[in-house]
Amino acid sequence: MNKAKPTVLKIGGSVITDKNGELEARTDVIDRLAGEIERAAIKRLVVIHGGGSFGHTKAQQYGIKDGLKDPSQLAKFAETHHVMTVLNGLLMDSLIWHNVPAVSVTPSSVIMTKEGRITTFDETVMRKLLEMKMTPVMYGDAVLDSEIGFTILSGDQLTATLATLLEAERIVIGVDVDGLFDGDPKAEKTTKLFEHLTVDELRKLQGKLGKSTACDVTGGMFGKMAELLYAVERGIPATIVNASEPDNVYLALRGERVRGTTIGEK
Amino acid sequence: MNKAKPTVLKIGGSVITDKNGELEARTDVIDRLAGEIERAAIKRLVVIHGGGSFGHTKAQQYGIKDGLKDPSQLAKFAETHHVMTVLNGLLMDSLIWHNVPAVSVTPSSVIMTKEGRITTFDETVMRKLLEMKMTPVMYGDAVLDSEIGFTILSGDQLTATLATLLEAERIVIGVDVDGLFDGDPKAEKTTKLFEHLTVDELRKLQGKLGKSTACDVTGGMFGKMAELLYAVERGIPATIVNASEPDNVYLALRGERVRGTTIGEK
Repeated sequence: MNKAKPTVLKIGGSVITDKNGELEARTDVIDRLAGEIERAAIKRLVVIHGGGSFGHTKAQQYGIKDGLKDPSQLAKFAETHHVMTVLNGLLMDSLIWHNVPAVSVTPSSVIMTKEGRITTFDETVMRKLLEMKMTPVMYGDAVLDSEIGFTILSGDQLTATLATLLEAERIVIGVDVDGLFDGDPKAEKTTKLFEHLTVDELRKLQGKLGKSTACDVTGGMFGKMAELLYAVERGIPATIVNASEPDNVYLALRGERVRGTTIGEK
Repeated sequence: MNKAKPTVLKIGGSVITDKNGELEARTDVIDRLAGEIERAAIKRLVVIHGGGSFGHTKAQQYGIKDGLKDPSQLAKFAETHHVMTVLNGLLMDSLIWHNVPAVSVTPSSVIMTKEGRITTFDETVMRKLLEMKMTPVMYGDAVLDSEIGFTILSGDQLTATLATLLEAERIVIGVDVDGLFDGDPKAEKTTKLFEHLTVDELRKLQGKLGKSTACDVTGGMFGKMAELLYAVERGIPATIVNASEPDNVYLALRGERVRGTTIGEK
């Protein structure tokens, strides 16, 4: 593989879907983000997106994450994966419309987990796409699991694993808040944004603020960071920005100054 | 893997799309076929479909089959793959609606070719899906090629390779004619249908009737059989039926008597 290190962009499911509706995509946001990706013109880029009201809703409804318990769930697993391909298709449509050479690499076709953790990952095609300067796109997906039959692979675990595997230059994470705060910015007004955190500072804050998703005072953000830690501990810096606001993803991809939280070097 | 051998069903692109229009799917036919697959209730089934007016049209327009010649083709390769995922999505929608636990395995995510012939094929997920009694679905696709950058993988090559790899019990091929004729049934009225051919007979007829697609007097059918030969020579019988007519695919899947051409042992 060519030496140039790829950038990994993760777009949160809550950015591109409406969590209040079922199977409601924000096609205007998808189109704006595809445009920002086009303008940023990053030669080696991997895009990963979450499931939002597509994947999460179905997965929860059918208990896919906890594995196969009843044969009637097989068709439900199939349906959960299928709705993710539909959401992915909307982003692919938009990226191709914007002339980005984006090729979807289906997570459930190349990845298997064991009790929810990635064990098999055939990244042959992924590497070849990057070498050819195309943009592989992956997503949180319903995947097969060697121990429990099937489960849900989060876009966050995928992002950290892939960034590490590909020795990414950096990770850009687009969410629906401005970054990491010392509280929940959606619930409180006096929360403070962390502009820069070292790996050590992130670890300490996680213990303090985000012990579990259930009692995470930061609205789930520090909980999500647990997955990301795997990559930043291995020297891959991450920038978290608000992708619901125009231009932030563009600026972060270009490495320009942008409101948000940077973790690790730089 | 469990010992039960899978059946491989190939559905021709000309059956599920309108070759006269661009990107025109025959959703009524897709829905009828999904219903026949549901009724047949084959425990271990792999479904493969062609590209018809989706894949073929784009591939030809952009010269994808001949490989990468100009960087501007990268976005065109991406587009060609994308339209195939759209056609696949319509079939998946319909299969899931019919309660078939169908899971799409993206060919370009798991297969690479060398000068158009499959060299890499990670079938881990495919085997696991069959073991779990789910129905993997693949399709003719735009894939990466280690020698020429990218190319088109035909549903026919995929069918023969996969059937051989999985030691399939048999192959059912649904096309838009009644089987193999000694002439072109669409152009002539006096052509005779071959109801049964041994592998040797097929080989001899191929030399006589279908030397190349360009001068194939059978309307391309014997030319297509060149790919299939690989599997039937290895002891996997194939039945060719008219999938544009109701019930033929159902009957062939159930192993019941049906008008068509059978090749190799029964």
